[in-house]
Amino acid sequence: MSLDPIRQDLIPFLASYLPPEQHNIENKPFVTLTYAQSIDARISLGPGIRTSISDVETKVMTHYLRYHHDGILIGSGTVLADDPGLNCKWHPDVAESKLSEYSPRPIILDPSQKWRFIGSKMYDLFKNGEGKSPIIVVSEKPQVEEEYIDYLIIDGHQGRIDWKTLVDRLSNEFGIKSIMVEGGAFVINELLLRDDIVDSLIVTVGSTYLGEDGVQVSPKKAISLIDADWWKGKKDSIMAARLVPRTN
Amino acid sequence: MSLDPIRQDLIPFLASYLPPEQHNIENKPFVTLTYAQSIDARISLGPGIRTSISDVETKVMTHYLRYHHDGILIGSGTVLADDPGLNCKWHPDVAESKLSEYSPRPIILDPSQKWRFIGSKMYDLFKNGEGKSPIIVVSEKPQVEEEYIDYLIIDGHQGRIDWKTLVDRLSNEFGIKSIMVEGGAFVINELLLRDDIVDSLIVTVGSTYLGEDGVQVSPKKAISLIDADWWKGKKDSIMAARLVPRTN
Repeated sequence: MSLDPIRQDLIPFLASYLPPEQHNIENKPFVTLTYAQSIDARISLGPGIRTSISDVETKVMTHYLRYHHDGILIGSGTVLADDPGLNCKWHPDVAESKLSEYSPRPIILDPSQKWRFIGSKMYDLFKNGEGKSPIIVVSEKPQVEEEYIDYLIIDGHQGRIDWKTLVDRLSNEFGIKSIMVEGGAFVINELLLRDDIVDSLIVTVGSTYLGEDGVQVSPKKAISLIDADWWKGKKDSIMAARLVPRTN
Repeated sequence: MSLDPIRQDLIPFLASYLPPEQHNIENKPFVTLTYAQSIDARISLGPGIRTSISDVETKVMTHYLRYHHDGILIGSGTVLADDPGLNCKWHPDVAESKLSEYSPRPIILDPSQKWRFIGSKMYDLFKNGEGKSPIIVVSEKPQVEEEYIDYLIIDGHQGRIDWKTLVDRLSNEFGIKSIMVEGGAFVINELLLRDDIVDSLIVTVGSTYLGEDGVQVSPKKAISLIDADWWKGKKDSIMAARLVPRTN
């Protein structure tokens, strides 16, 4: 994929939704929730179907966001379906040859250990010096450990993720102070209800309908947003916002 | 409700998606599909729950669109839930006292005749000279006919609406050359698949999530759009587009 330069007005638009340069080391990591959906709130045509929604104009934003985060978190379902690279391939201020060091560290939520690093696009990029090796979040110690990988064992209660423990351990044990969450729908729907974990929300809306069989993003209950702003692209629009902090 | 003036850049944005001034009388009526949804593609919190999604800034657009259409079509479910006025309350070039004559004629899809005009907000507006009387689309001749109403009897096959016959008869029998369709979800989801009926699509996207129990707009299958453009408001965004004409 060749990437066009980012549209210049996207940079100031995103600025206040990115992790601060001097993130207080005492705080929990800054978490950005980001995904691309159709107008009918679908992120893919169906489970396991890789679906392109956003325009070239907004695709480059993903790489700009990756540059600004230490880690990129994604569920194993999406990784198994899409075999994504998760590296950073474009930034306005960094030469291409230097980009790999600015790539975020992939963090794969794979409690039941279904995904393999070897043979993946992530592995090829890592071997070519174009991306970092992943941290795999598992619910128990793997019987066979793959080379180059860090395993983070977090007990899950009935398949639920303990998000607070996860982000704290990513910060304390791996120095990850900012995390962008790219999917899939299960992870996004859970985190939309976690104003204690999520610091900002960046949603690309493509001008297409994927239809009722698609995989949708819609949280279990209604939620309000604050500081919402929109960026208007040619074919897509981007909404950036923050979750309303609960008072209780 | 007091309405602020429309933001000036919304008028040129909408221009190419409105019914043409000189609509060819031979053609079927110009049909605009328009609704407001949350970012997760919900138009209400649940069946029968009246839900405000769009900002004041985009609410005024509804009245501007109503001014530009001869008819405003809505399903009886939505009318029973919301008791809407469906009149035109704001236009930049028309004095308030003259607005009622520019209000569209309400067209209520009520095959099983559940809705009553008397006692409704529409009735009050009509009696005050602030709105027009409705056309009710029914599947058989009503046993009791209400005053001031026109009934349009269209045979339905197993509850399905014969859209082609409906729009042609609205044109031929009532002189309605342009129709905006405001809801509900059932009507919108059907019409999103009818590029032979729908001429343009105007969707307001509010920066809120209504959650998975909400009433969603998502057609039975994926559809592509052409001529998509976005308008960026303060809290909402508006997408205007056309359906891709099928070649078969």
